[in-house]
Amino acid sequence: MTDLARFSINQMTVKQLTLPDLAAACRDLGVINVGLWREPVQEYGVAAAAKLVRDAGLTVTTLCRGGFLTATDPEARAAALADNRRAVDEAAALGTDTLVLVSGGLPPGERSLAAARERIADALAELAPYAGEHGVRLAIEPLHPMYAADRCVVSTLTQALDLAERFPAHQVGVTVDTYHVWWDDRAPAEIARAGAGGRIHTFQLADWTTPLPEGVLNGRGQLGDGSIDLREWQGHVEAAGYTGPIEVELFNEALWSRDGREVLAETAHRFVTHTAL
Amino acid sequence: MTDLARFSINQMTVKQLTLPDLAAACRDLGVINVGLWREPVQEYGVAAAAKLVRDAGLTVTTLCRGGFLTATDPEARAAALADNRRAVDEAAALGTDTLVLVSGGLPPGERSLAAARERIADALAELAPYAGEHGVRLAIEPLHPMYAADRCVVSTLTQALDLAERFPAHQVGVTVDTYHVWWDDRAPAEIARAGAGGRIHTFQLADWTTPLPEGVLNGRGQLGDGSIDLREWQGHVEAAGYTGPIEVELFNEALWSRDGREVLAETAHRFVTHTAL
Repeated sequence: MTDLARFSINQMTVKQLTLPDLAAACRDLGVINVGLWREPVQEYGVAAAAKLVRDAGLTVTTLCRGGFLTATDPEARAAALADNRRAVDEAAALGTDTLVLVSGGLPPGERSLAAARERIADALAELAPYAGEHGVRLAIEPLHPMYAADRCVVSTLTQALDLAERFPAHQVGVTVDTYHVWWDDRAPAEIARAGAGGRIHTFQLADWTTPLPEGVLNGRGQLGDGSIDLREWQGHVEAAGYTGPIEVELFNEALWSRDGREVLAETAHRFVTHTAL
Repeated sequence: MTDLARFSINQMTVKQLTLPDLAAACRDLGVINVGLWREPVQEYGVAAAAKLVRDAGLTVTTLCRGGFLTATDPEARAAALADNRRAVDEAAALGTDTLVLVSGGLPPGERSLAAARERIADALAELAPYAGEHGVRLAIEPLHPMYAADRCVVSTLTQALDLAERFPAHQVGVTVDTYHVWWDDRAPAEIARAGAGGRIHTFQLADWTTPLPEGVLNGRGQLGDGSIDLREWQGHVEAAGYTGPIEVELFNEALWSRDGREVLAETAHRFVTHTAL
Protein backbone atom coordinates (compact mmCIF):
# COMPACT_ATOMS: atom_id res chain seq x y z
CA MET A 1 0.00 0.00 0.00
CA THR A 2 1.43 3.36 -0.98
CA ASP A 3 1.00 6.42 1.20
CA LEU A 4 -1.70 7.63 -1.16
CA ALA A 5 -3.73 4.40 -1.23
CA ARG A 6 -6.43 5.94 0.95
CA PHE A 7 -6.12 9.49 -0.34
CA SER A 8 -9.00 10.77 -2.42
CA ILE A 9 -8.93 14.17 -4.04
CA ASN A 10 -12.31 15.83 -4.02
CA GLN A 11 -12.79 17.53 -7.34
CA MET A 12 -13.82 20.80 -5.68
CA THR A 13 -10.34 21.18 -4.17
CA VAL A 14 -8.91 21.62 -7.67
CA LYS A 15 -11.97 22.84 -9.52
CA GLN A 16 -9.74 24.81 -11.87
CA LEU A 17 -8.83 21.48 -13.51
CA THR A 18 -11.05 20.02 -16.21
CA LEU A 19 -12.05 16.40 -15.69
CA PRO A 20 -9.51 15.10 -18.23
CA ASP A 21 -6.77 17.26 -16.68
CA LEU A 22 -7.73 16.02 -13.23
CA ALA A 23 -7.57 12.40 -14.39
CA ALA A 24 -4.19 12.95 -16.03
CA ALA A 25 -2.80 14.75 -12.98
CA CYS A 26 -4.00 11.93 -10.73
CA ARG A 27 -2.25 9.38 -12.94
CA ASP A 28 0.98 11.33 -12.92
CA LEU A 29 0.93 11.76 -9.13
CA GLY A 30 -0.18 8.25 -8.23
CA VAL A 31 -3.58 9.39 -6.96
CA ILE A 32 -6.12 6.61 -7.42
CA ASN A 33 -9.30 8.00 -5.82
CA VAL A 34 -11.47 11.00 -6.64
CA GLY A 35 -14.64 12.52 -5.22
CA LEU A 36 -16.71 14.10 -7.97
CA TRP A 37 -19.30 16.89 -8.12
CA ARG A 38 -22.48 16.74 -10.11
CA GLU A 39 -22.20 20.05 -11.94
CA PRO A 40 -18.84 19.49 -13.67
CA VAL A 41 -19.77 15.86 -14.31
CA GLN A 42 -23.04 16.89 -15.95
CA GLU A 43 -21.21 19.49 -18.00
CA TYR A 44 -18.80 16.86 -19.28
CA GLY A 45 -21.56 14.30 -19.68
CA VAL A 46 -22.24 11.61 -17.09
CA ALA A 47 -21.51 8.65 -19.37
CA ALA A 48 -18.38 10.30 -20.75
CA ALA A 49 -17.18 11.12 -17.24
CA ALA A 50 -17.80 7.55 -16.10
CA LYS A 51 -15.75 6.24 -19.04
CA LEU A 52 -12.99 8.78 -18.44
CA VAL A 53 -12.45 7.89 -14.80
CA ARG A 54 -12.80 4.16 -15.49
CA ASP A 55 -10.21 4.34 -18.27
CA ALA A 56 -7.91 6.30 -15.96
CA GLY A 57 -8.16 3.60 -13.34
CA LEU A 58 -9.67 5.99 -10.83
CA THR A 59 -12.08 4.95 -8.11
CA VAL A 60 -14.90 7.42 -7.51
CA THR A 61 -15.22 7.59 -3.73
CA THR A 62 -18.25 9.89 -3.55
CA LEU A 63 -20.53 12.03 -5.64
CA CYS A 64 -21.34 15.44 -4.18
CA ARG A 65 -24.09 16.21 -3.75
CA GLY A 66 -27.75 15.58 -3.31
CA GLY A 67 -29.97 17.07 -0.67
CA PHE A 68 -31.63 20.48 -0.30
CA LEU A 69 -34.71 18.73 0.99
CA THR A 70 -36.20 21.35 3.32
CA ALA A 71 -38.73 23.01 1.01
CA THR A 72 -42.24 23.59 2.31
CA ASP A 73 -43.66 24.35 -1.12
CA PRO A 74 -45.00 21.09 -2.68
CA GLU A 75 -43.67 21.85 -6.16
CA ALA A 76 -40.23 22.73 -4.85
CA ARG A 77 -40.27 19.55 -2.78
CA ALA A 78 -41.23 17.39 -5.76
CA ALA A 79 -38.50 19.00 -7.85
CA ALA A 80 -35.93 18.34 -5.12
CA LEU A 81 -36.94 14.70 -4.87
CA ALA A 82 -36.72 14.26 -8.64
CA ASP A 83 -33.30 15.91 -8.68
CA ASN A 84 -32.08 13.61 -5.91
CA ARG A 85 -33.24 10.55 -7.84
CA ARG A 86 -31.17 11.81 -10.76
CA ALA A 87 -28.24 12.24 -8.40
CA VAL A 88 -28.60 8.61 -7.33
CA ASP A 89 -28.67 7.57 -10.99
CA GLU A 90 -25.54 9.60 -11.68
CA ALA A 91 -23.73 8.10 -8.69
CA ALA A 92 -24.59 4.60 -9.91
CA ALA A 93 -23.43 5.46 -13.43
CA LEU A 94 -20.10 6.75 -12.09
CA GLY A 95 -19.61 3.57 -10.10
CA THR A 96 -19.57 5.16 -6.67
CA ASP A 97 -21.60 3.77 -3.80
CA THR A 98 -21.86 7.06 -1.89
CA LEU A 99 -23.93 10.17 -2.54
CA VAL A 100 -23.22 13.01 -0.12
CA LEU A 101 -26.31 14.93 1.03
CA VAL A 102 -26.30 18.58 2.10
CA SER A 103 -29.69 18.91 3.64
CA GLY A 104 -30.66 22.51 2.85
CA GLY A 105 -31.38 25.57 4.94
CA LEU A 106 -34.49 27.31 6.20
CA PRO A 107 -36.92 28.31 3.46
CA PRO A 108 -37.67 32.06 3.38
CA GLY A 109 -39.73 33.11 6.39
CA GLU A 110 -39.29 29.79 8.20
CA ARG A 111 -37.68 29.80 11.63
CA SER A 112 -37.98 26.22 12.85
CA LEU A 113 -34.87 24.12 12.39
CA ALA A 114 -36.60 21.12 13.98
CA ALA A 115 -39.50 21.24 11.51
CA ALA A 116 -37.07 21.52 8.61
CA ARG A 117 -35.23 18.43 9.83
CA GLU A 118 -38.51 16.53 9.92
CA ARG A 119 -39.13 17.47 6.29
CA ILE A 120 -35.73 15.95 5.48
CA ALA A 121 -36.79 12.74 7.20
CA ASP A 122 -39.97 12.68 5.10
CA ALA A 123 -37.95 13.15 1.93
CA LEU A 124 -35.47 10.45 2.92
CA ALA A 125 -38.35 8.02 3.35
CA GLU A 126 -38.90 8.36 -0.39
CA LEU A 127 -35.27 8.55 -1.46
CA ALA A 128 -33.61 5.94 0.73
CA PRO A 129 -35.26 2.87 -0.85
CA TYR A 130 -34.58 4.28 -4.31
CA ALA A 131 -30.92 4.73 -3.44
CA GLY A 132 -30.71 1.26 -1.94
CA GLU A 133 -32.16 -0.29 -5.08
CA HIS A 134 -29.41 1.37 -7.09
CA GLY A 135 -26.58 0.35 -4.77
CA VAL A 136 -26.03 3.90 -3.58
CA ARG A 137 -25.76 4.95 0.07
CA LEU A 138 -26.94 8.41 1.08
CA ALA A 139 -24.40 10.10 3.35
CA ILE A 140 -26.01 12.91 5.34
CA GLU A 141 -23.39 15.57 5.96
CA PRO A 142 -23.81 17.73 9.03
CA LEU A 143 -22.47 21.16 8.15
CA HIS A 144 -20.95 23.55 10.66
CA PRO A 145 -23.63 25.42 12.66
CA MET A 146 -22.70 28.65 10.88
CA TYR A 147 -24.59 27.25 7.86
CA ALA A 148 -27.76 26.32 9.80
CA ALA A 149 -29.90 29.11 8.35
CA ASP A 150 -28.97 29.20 4.71
CA ARG A 151 -27.44 25.87 3.76
CA CYS A 152 -27.92 22.97 6.12
CA VAL A 153 -30.24 22.61 9.11
CA VAL A 154 -28.37 19.45 10.10
CA SER A 155 -25.55 20.86 12.23
CA THR A 156 -24.25 17.93 14.26
CA LEU A 157 -23.43 14.27 13.83
CA THR A 158 -26.05 13.60 16.48
CA GLN A 159 -28.76 15.13 14.30
CA ALA A 160 -27.44 13.41 11.19
CA LEU A 161 -27.47 10.01 12.90
CA ASP A 162 -30.91 10.62 14.39
CA LEU A 163 -32.09 10.98 10.80
CA ALA A 164 -29.98 8.20 9.31
CA GLU A 165 -30.94 5.60 11.89
CA ARG A 166 -34.54 5.68 10.77
CA PHE A 167 -33.32 3.78 7.68
CA PRO A 168 -31.11 0.76 6.99
CA ALA A 169 -27.39 1.54 7.06
CA HIS A 170 -26.92 0.40 3.46
CA GLN A 171 -29.38 3.13 2.48
CA VAL A 172 -28.49 6.07 4.76
CA GLY A 173 -25.41 6.96 6.77
CA VAL A 174 -23.33 10.06 7.43
CA THR A 175 -20.42 12.07 6.14
CA VAL A 176 -17.79 12.94 8.74
CA ASP A 177 -15.92 16.08 7.67
CA THR A 178 -13.40 17.52 10.11
CA TYR A 179 -14.21 21.08 9.06
CA HIS A 180 -17.79 20.73 10.19
CA VAL A 181 -17.40 18.70 13.39
CA TRP A 182 -14.05 19.66 14.91
CA TRP A 183 -15.58 22.10 17.42
CA ASP A 184 -18.06 19.53 18.77
CA ASP A 185 -16.99 17.72 21.92
CA ARG A 186 -19.76 15.19 21.39
CA ALA A 187 -18.57 14.26 17.91
CA PRO A 188 -16.08 11.56 18.97
CA ALA A 189 -18.85 9.63 20.73
CA GLU A 190 -21.13 10.13 17.73
CA ILE A 191 -18.43 8.82 15.40
CA ALA A 192 -18.28 5.71 17.57
CA ARG A 193 -22.07 5.44 17.33
CA ALA A 194 -21.92 5.85 13.55
CA GLY A 195 -19.18 3.27 13.21
CA ALA A 196 -20.99 0.74 15.36
CA GLY A 197 -23.96 1.05 13.03
CA GLY A 198 -21.90 0.83 9.85
CA ARG A 199 -22.90 4.35 8.93
CA ILE A 200 -19.63 6.20 8.32
CA HIS A 201 -20.04 6.34 4.58
CA THR A 202 -17.27 8.82 3.93
CA PHE A 203 -14.59 10.70 5.86
CA GLN A 204 -13.40 14.07 4.63
CA LEU A 205 -10.60 16.36 5.73
CA ALA A 206 -10.27 20.12 5.72
CA ASP A 207 -8.53 22.38 8.19
CA TRP A 208 -10.01 25.37 10.02
CA THR A 209 -8.36 28.69 9.30
CA THR A 210 -9.34 32.21 10.29
CA PRO A 211 -10.40 34.87 9.57
CA LEU A 212 -13.38 33.40 7.76
CA PRO A 213 -14.14 35.02 4.40
CA GLU A 214 -17.38 36.84 3.61
CA GLY A 215 -20.15 34.28 3.19
CA VAL A 216 -17.96 31.72 5.03
CA LEU A 217 -18.05 29.25 2.14
CA ASN A 218 -14.62 29.35 0.62
CA GLY A 219 -12.22 29.54 3.52
CA ARG A 220 -11.50 25.87 4.22
CA GLY A 221 -7.87 25.52 5.10
CA GLN A 222 -5.22 23.37 3.47
CA LEU A 223 -4.32 20.42 5.72
CA GLY A 224 -1.91 21.58 8.43
CA ASP A 225 -2.63 25.29 8.04
CA GLY A 226 -5.28 25.50 10.74
CA SER A 227 -6.52 24.55 14.19
CA ILE A 228 -7.71 20.99 13.68
CA ASP A 229 -5.80 17.99 14.96
CA LEU A 230 -6.46 15.92 11.84
CA ARG A 231 -4.71 12.80 13.12
CA GLU A 232 -6.90 12.82 16.19
CA TRP A 233 -10.05 12.80 14.07
CA GLN A 234 -8.63 10.11 11.81
CA GLY A 235 -8.04 8.15 15.01
CA HIS A 236 -11.68 8.56 15.99
CA VAL A 237 -13.06 7.23 12.71
CA GLU A 238 -10.55 4.40 12.60
CA ALA A 239 -11.34 3.40 16.18
CA ALA A 240 -14.94 3.28 14.98
CA GLY A 241 -13.93 0.79 12.30
CA TYR A 242 -13.62 3.06 9.28
CA THR A 243 -10.87 1.95 6.93
CA GLY A 244 -12.08 3.51 3.70
CA PRO A 245 -10.82 6.36 1.56
CA ILE A 246 -10.10 9.76 3.09
CA GLU A 247 -11.23 12.61 0.90
CA VAL A 248 -9.71 16.05 0.98
CA GLU A 249 -12.33 18.63 0.11
CA LEU A 250 -11.20 22.25 0.27
CA PHE A 251 -13.26 25.21 -0.84
CA ASN A 252 -10.60 27.88 -0.93
CA GLU A 253 -10.28 30.87 -3.22
CA ALA A 254 -6.53 31.05 -2.71
CA LEU A 255 -6.08 27.43 -3.78
CA TRP A 256 -8.40 27.90 -6.74
CA SER A 257 -6.32 30.83 -7.97
CA ARG A 258 -3.23 28.64 -8.29
CA ASP A 259 -2.16 26.02 -10.81
CA GLY A 260 -4.41 23.01 -10.27
CA ARG A 261 -1.70 20.38 -10.66
CA GLU A 262 0.47 22.18 -8.16
CA VAL A 263 -2.42 22.30 -5.69
CA LEU A 264 -3.11 18.60 -6.19
CA ALA A 265 0.55 17.75 -5.56
CA GLU A 266 0.62 19.97 -2.48
CA THR A 267 -2.58 18.45 -1.15
CA ALA A 268 -1.28 14.90 -1.61
CA HIS A 269 1.91 15.92 0.19
CA ARG A 270 -0.03 17.50 3.04
CA PHE A 271 -2.17 14.38 3.28
CA VAL A 272 0.88 12.22 3.79
CA THR A 273 2.28 14.69 6.31
CA HIS A 274 -0.87 15.18 8.39
CA THR A 275 -2.49 11.75 8.43
CA ALA A 276 -1.36 8.56 10.11
CA LEU A 277 -0.89 5.86 7.50
CA MET B 1 -44.52 48.13 34.00
CA THR B 2 -43.84 49.74 30.65
CA ASP B 3 -43.00 47.71 27.56
CA LEU B 4 -39.37 48.73 27.99
CA ALA B 5 -39.04 47.82 31.68
CA ARG B 6 -36.98 44.73 30.86
CA PHE B 7 -35.23 46.15 27.79
CA SER B 8 -31.54 46.85 28.17
CA ILE B 9 -29.51 48.45 25.42
CA ASN B 10 -26.05 47.03 25.18
CA GLN B 11 -23.67 49.87 24.53
CA MET B 12 -22.05 48.06 21.61
CA THR B 13 -25.31 48.20 19.64
CA VAL B 14 -24.98 51.98 19.46
CA LYS B 15 -21.27 52.38 19.90
CA GLN B 16 -21.35 55.54 17.77
CA LEU B 17 -22.93 57.30 20.78
CA THR B 18 -20.71 58.74 23.53
CA LEU B 19 -21.64 57.69 27.05
CA PRO B 20 -23.35 61.04 27.81
CA ASP B 21 -25.24 60.90 24.50
CA LEU B 22 -26.28 57.32 25.25
CA ALA B 23 -27.53 58.32 28.71
CA ALA B 24 -29.47 61.26 27.27
CA ALA B 25 -30.97 59.17 24.49
CA CYS B 26 -32.05 56.53 26.99
CA ARG B 27 -33.75 59.17 29.14
CA ASP B 28 -35.58 60.62 26.12
CA LEU B 29 -36.78 57.19 24.97
CA GLY B 30 -37.70 55.78 28.36
CA VAL B 31 -34.88 53.22 28.34
CA ILE B 32 -33.81 52.45 31.92
CA ASN B 33 -31.20 49.68 31.50
CA VAL B 34 -27.83 49.60 29.78
CA GLY B 35 -25.11 47.01 29.30
CA LEU B 36 -21.69 48.66 29.23
CA TRP B 37 -18.31 47.77 27.72
CA ARG B 38 -15.01 48.19 29.46
CA GLU B 39 -13.11 50.09 26.76
CA PRO B 40 -15.49 53.07 26.38
CA VAL B 41 -16.03 53.12 30.14
CA GLN B 42 -12.29 53.24 30.77
CA GLU B 43 -11.92 55.96 28.18
CA TYR B 44 -14.57 58.06 29.93
CA GLY B 45 -13.26 57.13 33.36
CA VAL B 46 -14.81 54.43 35.49
CA ALA B 47 -15.84 56.70 38.37
CA ALA B 48 -17.19 59.35 36.01
CA ALA B 49 -19.12 56.72 34.07
CA ALA B 50 -20.56 55.32 37.28
CA LYS B 51 -21.73 58.78 38.31
CA LEU B 52 -23.12 59.52 34.86
CA VAL B 53 -25.31 56.43 34.67
CA ARG B 54 -26.36 56.79 38.31
CA ASP B 55 -27.38 60.42 37.80
CA ALA B 56 -29.29 59.39 34.66
CA GLY B 57 -31.23 56.81 36.65
CA LEU B 58 -29.88 53.98 34.53
CA THR B 59 -29.37 50.44 35.78
CA VAL B 60 -26.21 48.79 34.49
CA THR B 61 -27.30 45.24 33.65
CA THR B 62 -23.89 43.86 32.67
CA LEU B 63 -20.31 44.83 32.04
CA CYS B 64 -18.73 43.30 28.93
CA ARG B 65 -16.30 41.75 29.18
CA GLY B 66 -13.72 39.77 31.04
CA GLY B 67 -12.25 36.48 29.97
CA PHE B 68 -9.56 35.54 27.44
CA LEU B 69 -8.26 32.99 29.89
CA THR B 70 -6.77 30.35 27.60
CA ALA B 71 -3.12 31.41 27.53
CA THR B 72 -0.46 28.75 28.05
CA ASP B 73 2.32 31.27 28.64
CA PRO B 74 2.59 31.99 32.41
CA GLU B 75 3.12 35.71 31.97
CA ALA B 76 0.17 36.05 29.61
CA ARG B 77 -1.93 34.04 32.04
CA ALA B 78 -0.97 36.25 34.99
CA ALA B 79 -1.72 39.37 32.95
CA ALA B 80 -5.14 37.97 32.00
CA LEU B 81 -5.96 37.19 35.62
CA ALA B 82 -4.93 40.68 36.72
CA ASP B 83 -7.00 42.23 33.97
CA ASN B 84 -10.03 40.17 34.99
CA ARG B 85 -9.68 41.31 38.59
CA ARG B 86 -9.73 44.89 37.31
CA ALA B 87 -12.85 44.03 35.32
CA VAL B 88 -14.52 42.78 38.50
CA ASP B 89 -13.55 46.02 40.24
CA GLU B 90 -14.99 48.06 37.37
CA ALA B 91 -18.24 46.09 37.43
CA ALA B 92 -18.58 46.69 41.15
CA ALA B 93 -17.85 50.40 40.70
CA LEU B 94 -20.51 50.65 38.00
CA GLY B 95 -23.03 48.97 40.27
CA THR B 96 -23.67 45.93 38.09
CA ASP B 97 -23.66 42.42 39.51
CA THR B 98 -22.75 40.71 36.23
CA LEU B 99 -19.47 40.53 34.33
CA VAL B 100 -19.73 38.75 30.98
CA LEU B 101 -16.80 36.45 30.16
CA VAL B 102 -15.64 35.62 26.64
CA SER B 103 -13.30 32.77 27.28
CA GLY B 104 -10.66 33.19 24.59
CA GLY B 105 -9.54 31.10 21.62
CA LEU B 106 -6.72 28.68 20.97
CA PRO B 107 -3.25 30.15 21.56
CA PRO B 108 -1.01 30.03 18.46
CA GLY B 109 0.00 26.47 17.65
CA GLU B 110 -2.46 24.89 20.09
CA ARG B 111 -5.07 22.48 18.77
CA SER B 112 -6.80 21.14 21.86
CA LEU B 113 -10.09 22.81 22.68
CA ALA B 114 -10.55 20.54 25.71
CA ALA B 115 -7.19 21.53 27.20
CA ALA B 116 -7.98 25.21 26.64
CA ARG B 117 -11.27 24.78 28.49
CA GLU B 118 -9.41 23.23 31.41
CA ARG B 119 -7.14 26.27 31.57
CA ILE B 120 -10.29 28.40 31.83
CA ALA B 121 -11.43 26.29 34.77
CA ASP B 122 -8.06 26.83 36.45
CA ALA B 123 -8.34 30.57 35.95
CA LEU B 124 -11.90 30.64 37.25
CA ALA B 125 -10.74 28.94 40.43
CA GLU B 126 -8.75 32.10 41.11
CA LEU B 127 -11.26 34.63 39.80
CA ALA B 128 -14.57 33.27 41.09
CA PRO B 129 -13.93 33.88 44.80
CA TYR B 130 -12.59 37.35 44.02
CA ALA B 131 -15.73 38.15 42.04
CA GLY B 132 -17.95 36.76 44.77
CA GLU B 133 -16.26 38.92 47.39
CA HIS B 134 -17.05 41.98 45.28
CA GLY B 135 -20.68 41.07 44.66
CA VAL B 136 -20.05 40.33 40.99
CA ARG B 137 -21.17 37.19 39.17
CA LEU B 138 -19.10 35.90 36.27
CA ALA B 139 -21.33 35.00 33.30
CA ILE B 140 -19.54 32.60 30.96
CA GLU B 141 -20.78 33.25 27.45
CA PRO B 142 -20.65 30.38 25.01
CA LEU B 143 -19.96 31.86 21.60
CA HIS B 144 -21.12 30.33 18.34
CA PRO B 145 -18.87 27.44 17.23
CA MET B 146 -17.60 29.56 14.34
CA TYR B 147 -15.50 31.43 16.96
CA ALA B 148 -14.03 28.30 18.57
CA ALA B 149 -10.52 28.76 17.16
CA ASP B 150 -9.88 32.46 17.50
CA ARG B 151 -12.19 33.86 20.14
CA CYS B 152 -13.94 31.42 22.43
CA VAL B 153 -13.31 27.73 22.99
CA VAL B 154 -16.58 27.52 24.93
CA SER B 155 -19.09 26.85 22.15
CA THR B 156 -22.17 25.48 23.89
CA LEU B 157 -24.25 26.10 26.98
CA THR B 158 -23.38 22.56 28.00
CA GLN B 159 -19.69 23.41 28.10
CA ALA B 160 -20.34 26.73 29.83
CA LEU B 161 -22.41 25.05 32.53
CA ASP B 162 -19.88 22.25 32.95
CA LEU B 163 -17.41 25.00 33.83
CA ALA B 164 -19.79 27.16 35.88
CA GLU B 165 -21.09 24.33 38.02
CA ARG B 166 -17.65 23.81 39.53
CA PHE B 167 -18.32 27.05 41.45
CA PRO B 168 -21.19 28.52 43.48
CA ALA B 169 -23.93 30.09 41.37
CA HIS B 170 -23.45 33.49 42.99
CA GLN B 171 -19.89 33.42 41.65
CA VAL B 172 -20.22 31.84 38.19
CA GLY B 173 -23.12 31.38 35.80
CA VAL B 174 -23.76 31.77 32.09
CA THR B 175 -24.81 34.26 29.46
CA VAL B 176 -27.56 33.07 27.14
CA ASP B 177 -27.35 34.94 23.82
CA THR B 178 -29.72 33.86 21.07
CA TYR B 179 -27.13 34.59 18.37
CA HIS B 180 -24.77 32.02 19.80
CA VAL B 181 -27.15 29.23 20.81
CA TRP B 182 -30.06 29.33 18.35
CA TRP B 183 -28.70 26.49 16.19
CA ASP B 184 -28.27 24.13 19.17
CA ASP B 185 -31.12 21.69 19.74
CA ARG B 186 -29.74 20.89 23.18
CA ALA B 187 -29.79 24.51 24.31
CA PRO B 188 -33.41 24.53 25.59
CA ALA B 189 -32.61 21.69 27.99
CA GLU B 190 -29.40 23.42 29.03
CA ILE B 191 -31.30 26.65 29.68
CA ALA B 192 -33.57 24.66 32.00
CA ARG B 193 -30.48 23.24 33.70
CA ALA B 194 -29.01 26.72 34.07
CA GLY B 195 -32.24 28.11 35.44
CA ALA B 196 -32.65 25.31 37.95
CA GLY B 197 -29.21 26.15 39.28
CA GLY B 198 -29.81 29.90 39.37
CA ARG B 199 -27.12 30.40 36.77
CA ILE B 200 -28.77 32.42 34.00
CA HIS B 201 -26.98 35.63 34.83
CA THR B 202 -27.96 37.49 31.67
CA PHE B 203 -30.07 36.96 28.58
CA GLN B 204 -29.13 38.70 25.35
CA LEU B 205 -30.87 38.98 21.99
CA ALA B 206 -29.52 39.27 18.47
CA ASP B 207 -30.92 37.86 15.26
CA TRP B 208 -29.11 35.66 12.72
CA THR B 209 -28.76 37.13 9.26
CA THR B 210 -26.82 35.94 6.22
CA PRO B 211 -24.52 36.23 4.38
CA LEU B 212 -22.05 36.53 7.22
CA PRO B 213 -19.47 39.30 6.77
CA GLU B 214 -15.73 38.68 6.50
CA GLY B 215 -14.39 37.77 9.94
CA VAL B 216 -17.99 36.98 11.03
CA LEU B 217 -17.88 39.46 13.91
CA ASN B 218 -20.08 42.32 12.84
CA GLY B 219 -23.08 40.74 11.17
CA ARG B 220 -25.49 40.31 14.06
CA GLY B 221 -28.96 41.03 12.82
CA GLN B 222 -31.45 43.57 14.12
CA LEU B 223 -34.30 41.82 15.96
CA GLY B 224 -36.79 40.47 13.46
CA ASP B 225 -34.47 40.61 10.45
CA GLY B 226 -33.21 37.05 10.68
CA SER B 227 -33.88 33.38 11.27
CA ILE B 228 -34.26 33.21 15.04
CA ASP B 229 -37.59 32.77 16.78
CA LEU B 230 -36.75 35.24 19.55
CA ARG B 231 -40.02 34.73 21.44
CA GLU B 232 -39.37 31.01 21.59
CA TRP B 233 -35.99 31.57 23.24
CA GLN B 234 -37.46 34.13 25.60
CA GLY B 235 -39.99 31.44 26.49
CA HIS B 236 -37.18 28.99 27.27
CA VAL B 237 -35.38 31.33 29.67
CA GLU B 238 -38.62 32.40 31.33
CA ALA B 239 -39.76 28.80 31.76
CA ALA B 240 -36.39 28.33 33.48
CA GLY B 241 -37.28 31.11 35.90
CA TYR B 242 -35.42 34.04 34.37
CA THR B 243 -37.30 37.30 34.83
CA GLY B 244 -34.40 39.75 34.57
CA PRO B 245 -33.42 42.32 31.97
CA ILE B 246 -33.13 41.36 28.31
CA GLU B 247 -30.15 42.95 26.64
CA VAL B 248 -29.95 43.65 22.94
CA GLU B 249 -26.37 43.40 21.78
CA LEU B 250 -25.81 43.86 18.05
CA PHE B 251 -22.43 44.07 16.37
CA ASN B 252 -23.44 45.38 13.00
CA GLU B 253 -21.56 47.69 10.66
CA ALA B 254 -24.76 48.86 8.99
CA LEU B 255 -26.28 49.88 12.32
CA TRP B 256 -23.06 51.58 13.39
CA SER B 257 -23.05 53.68 10.21
CA ARG B 258 -26.42 55.23 11.11
CA ASP B 259 -27.48 57.88 13.62
CA GLY B 260 -27.12 56.32 17.06
CA ARG B 261 -30.34 57.73 18.51
CA GLU B 262 -32.28 56.47 15.52
CA VAL B 263 -30.78 52.99 15.97
CA LEU B 264 -31.62 53.03 19.67
CA ALA B 265 -35.23 54.01 18.94
CA GLU B 266 -35.50 51.33 16.25
CA THR B 267 -34.00 48.70 18.56
CA ALA B 268 -36.42 49.56 21.36
CA HIS B 269 -39.29 49.33 18.87
CA ARG B 270 -38.07 45.98 17.56
CA PHE B 271 -37.73 44.75 21.12
CA VAL B 272 -41.37 45.52 21.83
CA THR B 273 -42.41 43.92 18.55
CA HIS B 274 -40.38 40.72 18.84
CA THR B 275 -40.53 39.86 22.52
CA ALA B 276 -43.45 38.75 24.66
CA LEU B 277 -44.00 41.18 27.51
